[in-house]
Amino acid sequence: MQHAFITGAAGFIGSTLVDRLLAHGVSVTGWDNLSTGQLRFLEGALRHPTFRLIEGDNLDERALSAAMRGSDFVFHLAANADIKDGWSHPRRDLEQNTIATFNVLEAMRANGIKRIAFSSTGSVYGEAMVTPDKPTPETDPFPIQTSLYGASKTAGEGLIAAYAEGGQIDEAYIFRFVSILGERYTHGHVFDFYQQLRDHPQLLHVLGDGTQRKSYLYVQDCIDAMLHVTHTRTARDAAHHTQIYNLGTAEYVDVRQSIAVICQELGLQPELKFTGGNRGWIGDNPFIFLDTKKVRATGWKPALTIREALIRTLQWLQSNPWVYDVRSS
Amino acid sequence: MQHAFITGAAGFIGSTLVDRLLAHGVSVTGWDNLSTGQLRFLEGALRHPTFRLIEGDNLDERALSAAMRGSDFVFHLAANADIKDGWSHPRRDLEQNTIATFNVLEAMRANGIKRIAFSSTGSVYGEAMVTPDKPTPETDPFPIQTSLYGASKTAGEGLIAAYAEGGQIDEAYIFRFVSILGERYTHGHVFDFYQQLRDHPQLLHVLGDGTQRKSYLYVQDCIDAMLHVTHTRTARDAAHHTQIYNLGTAEYVDVRQSIAVICQELGLQPELKFTGGNRGWIGDNPFIFLDTKKVRATGWKPALTIREALIRTLQWLQSNPWVYDVRSS
Repeated sequence: MQHAFITGAAGFIGSTLVDRLLAHGVSVTGWDNLSTGQLRFLEGALRHPTFRLIEGDNLDERALSAAMRGSDFVFHLAANADIKDGWSHPRRDLEQNTIATFNVLEAMRANGIKRIAFSSTGSVYGEAMVTPDKPTPETDPFPIQTSLYGASKTAGEGLIAAYAEGGQIDEAYIFRFVSILGERYTHGHVFDFYQQLRDHPQLLHVLGDGTQRKSYLYVQDCIDAMLHVTHTRTARDAAHHTQIYNLGTAEYVDVRQSIAVICQELGLQPELKFTGGNRGWIGDNPFIFLDTKKVRATGWKPALTIREALIRTLQWLQSNPWVYDVRSS
Repeated sequence: MQHAFITGAAGFIGSTLVDRLLAHGVSVTGWDNLSTGQLRFLEGALRHPTFRLIEGDNLDERALSAAMRGSDFVFHLAANADIKDGWSHPRRDLEQNTIATFNVLEAMRANGIKRIAFSSTGSVYGEAMVTPDKPTPETDPFPIQTSLYGASKTAGEGLIAAYAEGGQIDEAYIFRFVSILGERYTHGHVFDFYQQLRDHPQLLHVLGDGTQRKSYLYVQDCIDAMLHVTHTRTARDAAHHTQIYNLGTAEYVDVRQSIAVICQELGLQPELKFTGGNRGWIGDNPFIFLDTKKVRATGWKPALTIREALIRTLQWLQSNPWVYDVRSS
């Protein structure tokens, strides 16, 4: 990899990847429509001579293709990640996730770029049907989708695989993430809980009944895994040029445990008010825990526990109150 | 079901379904962009007082929604079915299959229509990974897509499931078809073989090496299954409002056996020239054989064997040479 193209380069994960690749001596073109990305995350990168940022939207296929020229690897991370409110704008997942991925693939084809890594999600497993309470492997039964977000990421995966199996792409790495935590985190339950507790330290409203169990991964561990796997080039000579890896820790926590870590760190003992039901929102998956044996077999393992990642996330939010101002809408 | 809305109503399967529903006393609105559909298939239906045809494209969301008004069940059959040449026009599967399905779902939502049946495909299984040589069940491992067509149908399935699991649809029936044969068949290997043999009875060019094994189903059996399953309303009170059924016969044939049936019926013994390789085209699945236990458990079973269906198809093509004129391009 000499020149990486990163969609969603100004986002939480994208900007962290930009910094890591630049530190490794890779030239980087960042692409972002700045709808949720933050220029502030790229302050360091923008001072780097081999980084350039191009503002553009994945729906603008011509501009995307022009921006991609000269790159030899695409990290396609841009997405609508607002899972919870999918039903307020159902076309957004279709456009920003499914059609966007198609446009990225067509732009790669136009530029002869043959390698891609894609940020998919554990949500593609819908409600894992055969293995409840066990970690979900990549070969879990063909799932029933339960959210527009999961459906759009499944569609993106399918497109990438069709391009790879159809000979248009030599190496396709699909990473199914659990929720990611860490510095530059701007979306999710820790974000919401801290916001509430900052404003009202005595009361915390919680979606669901607190029993939802989810796994999390620290952002630098996530990037370690992507860089490690793409470096191994396992997809190059495989029967399938599409290689799929779950990314997560080998543990999960329930919402009450998350709250306990956050409250202990903040020194608070708020009253908890639950909305009830075992789902946080329509289509929420009450149990996300991925089997990560496949990616661990490549030699990668996470450095941080979920507890450590939660604390780092909280500390970053405490030091960066500005993210609440830019994200409030 | 009192008033059915059928996308792709002028197509092979769609027009046959129109006739069957009208015969059952159901009012039908047919919707077709007539890109591959044939008005001639609707000659009988158009004389029926409770049938109306509206010409329109699924990408025209506003017209689609207006046309759907007053219907209580949607059969979404319209699709780009040109699997083989996906790479000559990659956007077509995205538009006519994925985005089209989204628009159908949004039009249903706008009209408060809560029941849908969808024609998916065995191609969604990609290359069935764990059960080679065995029939593929609905719960096969999460597949790697191998064609743009399969990817676009998987995307359509995911969207429908997300709408159903998200409470927007009460009953979603997804039917994964093998290739369908019978009267009004205008696309596929029997169509191509008969065309060649009609023009050059001594020579038959065959894609692949003749070992590709596929299952087929007679069109009236296919429609029997859809009507039977939707009538049972299994999705109504199920934990998942999305019910998925493989549709096929409990047998398969290889290409050489297909050719033998066709040649025997035509009284020909042509020289066979194979292009070679175990795939007919890029992304072709060399083995499609679906496990149909689930749909059989509802009480349905096919009336015709593959051999009988092949012969009916051939006889229909012989009696309807006009289809070769309208489909040549």
